[in-house]
Amino acid sequence: MNKSELFNQIKKKESFLCVGLDTDIKKIPTHLLSEEDPIFSFNKAIIDATHDLCIAYKPNTAFYESNGVEGWKSLEKTINYIKDNYPDLFVIADAKRGDIGNTSKMYARTFFESLRADAVTVAPYMGEDSVTPFLGYANKWVILLALTSNKGSDDFQRILDASEKRPLFETVMTTAQKWADDEQLMYVVGATQGEAFRRIREIAPTHFLLVPGVGAQGGSLQEVCTYGMTNQCGLIVNSSRGIIYADQTRDFALASRKAAMKLQKQMALELLKRVD
Amino acid sequence: MNKSELFNQIKKKESFLCVGLDTDIKKIPTHLLSEEDPIFSFNKAIIDATHDLCIAYKPNTAFYESNGVEGWKSLEKTINYIKDNYPDLFVIADAKRGDIGNTSKMYARTFFESLRADAVTVAPYMGEDSVTPFLGYANKWVILLALTSNKGSDDFQRILDASEKRPLFETVMTTAQKWADDEQLMYVVGATQGEAFRRIREIAPTHFLLVPGVGAQGGSLQEVCTYGMTNQCGLIVNSSRGIIYADQTRDFALASRKAAMKLQKQMALELLKRVD
Repeated sequence: MNKSELFNQIKKKESFLCVGLDTDIKKIPTHLLSEEDPIFSFNKAIIDATHDLCIAYKPNTAFYESNGVEGWKSLEKTINYIKDNYPDLFVIADAKRGDIGNTSKMYARTFFESLRADAVTVAPYMGEDSVTPFLGYANKWVILLALTSNKGSDDFQRILDASEKRPLFETVMTTAQKWADDEQLMYVVGATQGEAFRRIREIAPTHFLLVPGVGAQGGSLQEVCTYGMTNQCGLIVNSSRGIIYADQTRDFALASRKAAMKLQKQMALELLKRVD
Repeated sequence: MNKSELFNQIKKKESFLCVGLDTDIKKIPTHLLSEEDPIFSFNKAIIDATHDLCIAYKPNTAFYESNGVEGWKSLEKTINYIKDNYPDLFVIADAKRGDIGNTSKMYARTFFESLRADAVTVAPYMGEDSVTPFLGYANKWVILLALTSNKGSDDFQRILDASEKRPLFETVMTTAQKWADDEQLMYVVGATQGEAFRRIREIAPTHFLLVPGVGAQGGSLQEVCTYGMTNQCGLIVNSSRGIIYADQTRDFALASRKAAMKLQKQMALELLKRVD
């Protein structure tokens, strides 16, 4: 999916919501545990209940890997289910990978060939040859960690670069623009980073940002839109726990729909204010 | 396995060799392709041929994930085979993971509970709460990326920190020492980094270093030992392609043994010179 197709989906659905499929076997409703693949059954129900309200799904690989071989099956089935039934939905493999060139090439093969993801999150620490192997696929995206939503983002991401007089995350963002343009590169910026979005839009005025941290982590949707939205939206805002664990009874899917709808309605309003 | 047990293995085997199991289905001898699980069959043959010459194995998850569900099975079987047959061998899951606390906890569960790894490589970009969840397991290790072996290590790892007047990788190393001591924390330092080992030993005089990049990537074992070896060794030197793809005929396992033995003999000599 390219940038203008993504923007068209956003306009059509009046939503820039991504639903994070951080599915933990210990947190899903107990009646699902008798199913053959409880994780997949849970995801399927969430997807069927929310697909018209969001433009993307983001399974985080950690939650699947922790169940070993069975978990990897659930991940594969989940992505296939989305792509087979709702082909306009954008699938982000939240994997935070990155290794030497030879090895990153294998990860790219994993997420873009073996799995049918549209985008993968990538960690920048190992530099250019750890990122560029993911860029060799048409209409597939790298979403590079820039300024993350967690407390630990203060430890290294804001270190001041002595020669450039800017924090590390700005150097990461600027350097990566030599490797790809805004048709293949997005950045992760946490919703908890508030006013930092203003500076980020100076560095990346047209790039899409993937924004986690609304909801359980405490970020404000309105603040993100005030400082981060462009006239082509430029935002994919993720909510995981706030949507998928909205309720843990047999009505969990309906509850997830309500939680997603609440965010979608706020998003529709923000789009009306700021997007042509 | 704790630090003194690891050192004892090194003395006993006169080796600090780690064999990197970066097993690519496209590079293994063709006669194995008719086996039920060619990747596992290949690994098993390599392990049986080298286990007395090395102290560790390091499967890189990228190579397994790229084969999907089947690949994850091969990874699980490989680690189980090592642990069931050669329990003194140290197993490093080269995964380069790191995510927000809640998610890193799932990765820790993957590698230390679902899989039986002794150590996992972790990327530092997301800071403290992305690393500490891996530290909650007795005798299990975090191996943190510090100064990697690839060309891209120049892009961010050597950026000068304005307030501390030191490169980023030194800040990463120093900061991480607040989270764990040398009984749970090692660092990745590429063999290609040569003299940088001198500075690294000032920052981390007693920590083990995992050193990739000897062989195919061009690093020198002798240089690594000159600048990086402590009187308790303090080094785990990895070779992947140079050992496992030493030969692609039916004699591949014997060839891998010869390649491993060549390194082991050089290592025995270095240990004799430098370790009590």
